[in-house]
Amino acid sequence: MSGRPLDVLEDALGEPVTVRLKSGEEYAGELDGYDQHMNLVLSRASVADDETASTEDTTIIRGDNVVSITP
Amino acid sequence: MSGRPLDVLEDALGEPVTVRLKSGEEYAGELDGYDQHMNLVLSRASVADDETASTEDTTIIRGDNVVSITP
Amino acid sequence: MSGRPLDVLEDALGEPVTVRLKSGEEYAGELDGYDQHMNLVLSRASVADDETASTEDTTIIRGDNVVSITP
Amino acid sequence: MSGRPLDVLEDALGEPVTVRLKSGEEYAGELDGYDQHMNLVLSRASVADDETASTEDTTIIRGDNVVSITP
Amino acid sequence: MSGRPLDVLEDALGEPVTVRLKSGEEYAGELDGYDQHMNLVLSRASVADDETASTEDTTIIRGDNVVSITP
Amino acid sequence: MSGRPLDVLEDALGEPVTVRLKSGEEYAGELDGYDQHMNLVLSRASVADDETASTEDTTIIRGDNVVSITP
Amino acid sequence: MSGRPLDVLEDALGEPVTVRLKSGEEYAGELDGYDQHMNLVLSRASVADDETASTEDTTIIRGDNVVSITP
Repeated sequence: MSGRPLDVLEDALGEPVTVRLKSGEEYAGELDGYDQHMNLVLSRASVADDETASTEDTTIIRGDNVVSITP
Repeated sequence: MSGRPLDVLEDALGEPVTVRLKSGEEYAGELDGYDQHMNLVLSRASVADDETASTEDTTIIRGDNVVSITP
Repeated sequence: MSGRPLDVLEDALGEPVTVRLKSGEEYAGELDGYDQHMNLVLSRASVADDETASTEDTTIIRGDNVVSITP
Repeated sequence: MSGRPLDVLEDALGEPVTVRLKSGEEYAGELDGYDQHMNLVLSRASVADDETASTEDTTIIRGDNVVSITP
Repeated sequence: MSGRPLDVLEDALGEPVTVRLKSGEEYAGELDGYDQHMNLVLSRASVADDETASTEDTTIIRGDNVVSITP
Repeated sequence: MSGRPLDVLEDALGEPVTVRLKSGEEYAGELDGYDQHMNLVLSRASVADDETASTEDTTIIRGDNVVSITP
Repeated sequence: MSGRPLDVLEDALGEPVTVRLKSGEEYAGELDGYDQHMNLVLSRASVADDETASTEDTTIIRGDNVVSITP
């Protein structure tokens, strides 16, 4: 009932997540890592709103761009 | 009379809340967690202003996007 | 003559206040709490500039949205 | 010759000041208080650029909105 | 050769400076004071880009508006 | 599985990376250095979205402009 | 291979640099100083994108405006 945000991220390690950014873009990938600023590491990341969904091995997203993370 | 903001969030744990974001979007869900930055964890979250209200199990919202939280 | 900002908020607890946000919106309500970031708790809050003034029991406003607070 | 910004604010306590905000608005009033974030307390404050100059008893302005303060 | 930014401000005390702001405005005046946030105190300040160049005794500029300072 | 963001940057030293900025620009280059703010040093950097791809020896990118880094 | 951003700035002291700002402007000059916020001191600075390239003795640029620095 009272999972703190970073605890929820910890539990999501290795799981697929959807990350929405302030720019409106949405990344989908597997959560490989994070830190206390909500900087994220996604593997098998693709940008959903892009014209050509790019699949990349690993992407670091700087936390201050993040709106929401949905495991 | 003098509930501090984080105390009000503590009391709202497990309760339905509406969260307004700077983007104009509104999330509704049950407050599952928070931290001192007002990062939030919502369960059964849906985006009210979206064309298709999406129901998702759990969503983390980064606090710096938040305008207001109404329990 | 030299009331510091947080002292003025302390004195306004339980009193009606008008809060202007960077978005241009204006909240009116009773000040129920605050913290050092100017995060605010308003009770009986309504949004003055909205088309339909909504009355809500309690609203937390994140401080970084605030332009001014008028007790 | 070398008055630091907060020293100049200290000297301006009780004096009329004009405060310009990032929004383009201008507040005029008497400086009643301030803190290290340049959060300000103005008494007899009026908004110069508003269509109807509103006179209010006391207004707290959050410092991160401020462009300049002219005693 | 290696004057740090605050050292250059220290040397400019009492000298005329031009301050460019993120809004595009330009202030000219004599540098009367500063602090570690680059909050500035200008005397005999005028706004160059304004239609009517206003001459004011002393103006405090909040540092987060500053783009550049030219002694 | 749980590489923290700065660990992934450490592993990418000397490797080619693509850096997306909030402005929409994309830099490609070899990662020569970084710090805890995600300030980056790229060598052989070029701006992909520019009309004329400029090749420069070394470029420092201030971290607060970064959206994502893809090794 | 692993030059940290501030080390690269240290090495660039006394050398010509190009500084790109979030506003789109570009400054060229000799790097005379910097600090840990990437506040910069340029001598013989000129604004490349301005209609009339102004040559000024010394300019302080506040670090939070900086996108990139190219020695």
